[in-house]
Amino acid sequence: MANSLQVYLDAIEESVQSFQLPKNPKGLYEPARYLLNIGGKRMRPVLTLMGCELFHTNYANAKDAALAVELFHNFSLVHDDIMDKAPLRRGKETVHKKWNENTAILCGDALLIEAYKLLCTYQPELSHQLLAIFNKTASEVCEGQHQDMDFETQKIVSIDEYIEMIRKKTAVLLGCSLKMGSIIGGASESEAEELYQFGVNLGLAFQLQDDLLDVYADQTKFGKQVGGDIIANKKTYLLLLAFQDANESQKNQLEQLLSETDLEKKVFEVKAIYKLLDIETKAHKKMQTIYSTALDSLNGLTVSEEKKKPLRNLAEFLMSREV
Amino acid sequence: MANSLQVYLDAIEESVQSFQLPKNPKGLYEPARYLLNIGGKRMRPVLTLMGCELFHTNYANAKDAALAVELFHNFSLVHDDIMDKAPLRRGKETVHKKWNENTAILCGDALLIEAYKLLCTYQPELSHQLLAIFNKTASEVCEGQHQDMDFETQKIVSIDEYIEMIRKKTAVLLGCSLKMGSIIGGASESEAEELYQFGVNLGLAFQLQDDLLDVYADQTKFGKQVGGDIIANKKTYLLLLAFQDANESQKNQLEQLLSETDLEKKVFEVKAIYKLLDIETKAHKKMQTIYSTALDSLNGLTVSEEKKKPLRNLAEFLMSREV
Repeated sequence: MANSLQVYLDAIEESVQSFQLPKNPKGLYEPARYLLNIGGKRMRPVLTLMGCELFHTNYANAKDAALAVELFHNFSLVHDDIMDKAPLRRGKETVHKKWNENTAILCGDALLIEAYKLLCTYQPELSHQLLAIFNKTASEVCEGQHQDMDFETQKIVSIDEYIEMIRKKTAVLLGCSLKMGSIIGGASESEAEELYQFGVNLGLAFQLQDDLLDVYADQTKFGKQVGGDIIANKKTYLLLLAFQDANESQKNQLEQLLSETDLEKKVFEVKAIYKLLDIETKAHKKMQTIYSTALDSLNGLTVSEEKKKPLRNLAEFLMSREV
Repeated sequence: MANSLQVYLDAIEESVQSFQLPKNPKGLYEPARYLLNIGGKRMRPVLTLMGCELFHTNYANAKDAALAVELFHNFSLVHDDIMDKAPLRRGKETVHKKWNENTAILCGDALLIEAYKLLCTYQPELSHQLLAIFNKTASEVCEGQHQDMDFETQKIVSIDEYIEMIRKKTAVLLGCSLKMGSIIGGASESEAEELYQFGVNLGLAFQLQDDLLDVYADQTKFGKQVGGDIIANKKTYLLLLAFQDANESQKNQLEQLLSETDLEKKVFEVKAIYKLLDIETKAHKKMQTIYSTALDSLNGLTVSEEKKKPLRNLAEFLMSREV
């Protein structure tokens, strides 16, 4: 019988907790431990374990790679939080707030290096294959983060540029997590690639869902402030689509709304334009199309349905947040 | 006949210039290219090439590893410069000044990842060996940088702690550069280790020489302000040795001088205490002892004297700055 999600989550948690960071200097590694301990969904390392087990290999073999992915993710978070000047992460003080920016820079660097160490615990040939996809992904994540920052100051961003940015910043790491697991599991090159595409598209769909939730979520069920992206003038898929589809007068209205100081009015009126342009439906359709493409990749794999179940369940779970 | 230093320097320069960073996003990779182009001594990659050629292997085989070392060095510089709020590097604006801190953080991250990519261009078995020493060194460099920052706010730092800090922050990368070259050259484990020790001790001696030069260099030949470390209250080997050897009254004097605002007087009086305590001679002796240990490692290698010549010349050149 297929393992439940909880089995994988427990394995990851055990792995994170028992992971030994170097002891000294304390001022460098305690912030790293703090960051790992505040948790998060652990979605990426779970994907690595599942990707491995899909090919009839005990997920325990993929634990180091899964942990590497989680450390890498935390490396990118701690540096992103400095750049975004974010005071909180998962409801707790960010590292650069609790300590300082210099410590946060070094803490991120150290986590990235620890991730590489973990990928080097495998046999040379296997390690080499893992590093190929990991290196490529690591560069793309940095590139995506840079593009995201760039967008803040750019007046015009196209839909294609936006999709490319979220692909790099968020989606490829899901693909990489799965692909590394599958390589350890013994997948063929084409199978590993198919699984990579599944992960990337799942990541894209998840991010579009995030954009939708920000505007249309039920406030009682949503962790953040509904309309937060609109208030912050964040260039989301919805806003960019609205600018693309709007007529001249609607475009002017949208542009004026960017500097509207009555925030309730701002959210209300931007949503009104979204309504006129059918943005919710269009964005939802796009999300569904990408999610279908993701599932096509999973369906295409010649592995028993029983084996696919954990991944299918996880995908459904991730996409089940009510919009 | 042994190659001259210039042959190696030219090879590195060619390698750095022809190295293709990804093209986009420009805002991320242009700062990285800028940093690589402002140069520097290229001492570390030269060590990698020399370490390789010592074992009868064409240095061209070590070019990617040499470049990796140079990229790693630049990664650490760009992050250190943010932490130190340094406006200039090699006489040019630092990346975080010319662009901004966020760009400098990402630029460093991207350079570190590019270094890893280069180490993965070798065959899996060889690459695995290179990564083992590289990962260890990379962690130590971050740890050393953290300790160095810590020292600024610590009242008491022991000589041993200082040596350990400069070992990690500066010296191990020289050892790593040589060791990686020697592994590519086909050295045995013990030969690679001997060469590593040569590099580490050379690095330590070089750093102590730096501390000496800051106080006793001829201003007409010295690139920086003589006495700069004293003015900045930098915990150098000399200052820590003085605190260690001073009597109570001298200790009090030194402590008062830390907040002296007449900078000429400050440098003059600290130097007077150094004179009383014979600090210059003692530091010089320590530097010489470590340099001798370095040369012992080189002498111990069962390789022809002809083959050792480039390394011996480079070591002499590095230690020839007049104190």
